[in-house]
Amino acid sequence: MEDITSKYIETPTGYLMVLTHKDNVIAALSALAEKEDIPSATFFGIGFSGSATFGFYDFDDKVFVPKTYKDMEMASLNGSIAWQNGKPSIHAHAANTGGDYDAVGGHILEMEVGTGSMEITILRHTKKLERKIEPSIKANILQLN
Amino acid sequence: MEDITSKYIETPTGYLMVLTHKDNVIAALSALAEKEDIPSATFFGIGFSGSATFGFYDFDDKVFVPKTYKDMEMASLNGSIAWQNGKPSIHAHAANTGGDYDAVGGHILEMEVGTGSMEITILRHTKKLERKIEPSIKANILQLN
Amino acid sequence: MEDITSKYIETPTGYLMVLTHKDNVIAALSALAEKEDIPSATFFGIGFSGSATFGFYDFDDKVFVPKTYKDMEMASLNGSIAWQNGKPSIHAHAANTGGDYDAVGGHILEMEVGTGSMEITILRHTKKLERKIEPSIKANILQLN
Repeated sequence: MEDITSKYIETPTGYLMVLTHKDNVIAALSALAEKEDIPSATFFGIGFSGSATFGFYDFDDKVFVPKTYKDMEMASLNGSIAWQNGKPSIHAHAANTGGDYDAVGGHILEMEVGTGSMEITILRHTKKLERKIEPSIKANILQLN
Repeated sequence: MEDITSKYIETPTGYLMVLTHKDNVIAALSALAEKEDIPSATFFGIGFSGSATFGFYDFDDKVFVPKTYKDMEMASLNGSIAWQNGKPSIHAHAANTGGDYDAVGGHILEMEVGTGSMEITILRHTKKLERKIEPSIKANILQLN
Repeated sequence: MEDITSKYIETPTGYLMVLTHKDNVIAALSALAEKEDIPSATFFGIGFSGSATFGFYDFDDKVFVPKTYKDMEMASLNGSIAWQNGKPSIHAHAANTGGDYDAVGGHILEMEVGTGSMEITILRHTKKLERKIEPSIKANILQLN
């Protein structure tokens, strides 16, 4: 992602980010984490998604099954920022709605902002946190210790 | 909206608002913004909605198509407070569920609290923010600069 | 719930809790409230739910009708912590999605973490708040005064 500096401001509790058309949400949050050296954070937001790919884990085949939705309101975005192998690790979920108002969503694999914007509030925490794969359940878990 | 003073308290990070039956959610957040002279804020909450009208933007006809749902649990409310033409500008999305537990929602045009309450947490920011229509996409975008 | 100390850290605005497989979400939030003597709080989060029972209020029969969903992504969790009769009172709503990506949810009666985790951010407030049944509408309302 190109320079992210113009896309957020500091707040008393962290940051407020406004992304616009074609911005990659996960890449933008990663760029913020690196630029501000965020030890860990949680975030929430709303917006309009041009393309959102959700992944539901298939316990038999042990893969995320992707499904992509175009041009939907994002009713809610929630997630966390941590680190893994020296890189930001973004974990994000969303509920999106289209022209029939029905909500779909889950675990975000990829998300791009649509014609409009996405407003994301980031709560900055002070402890550096890592994510680690737990072999027993193949889940990527946020480690507190 | 009549006096809003009894409907919120201050918190270390902003405010906690509890609305009750028949309160207008957008009007209440606007009244709070004016009373507390909130430069900008983001919020999240839950509650029970007596009437919620969502609008999905029709890109061909360039209008929001309204749809109203009665008496639903509000699984999530998220949004932001900014200013436009000297008045508070509230941008809010929600996901609501009824007796079949299916979630619907999106961009809120109007919302009234049902028989029960709505609990909204407001994170106060320090920078005065404006919203502005971006002519190229006819979207009302939160301006950071 | 067994000792909760290893399942959360303090943050500048409250706490970050990470629950794992089989943890009871409502019990964990209650244990946190008691251990940290939280006067009141609001929270939001995401995760994977092994079992989630939602209740929609039947206005005629005046009971919550329960419905349970297994193994779903929790797109959003939102709620509040207060007190009632000397015990923590947790009010929580969620929107969950399964393998068809359709969202369901509402008012949580019970929720257990699935194979994976649940990340919950708690904003601590300073005023002790109680919940009280309002006889006229049989709703359990957060009292600000």
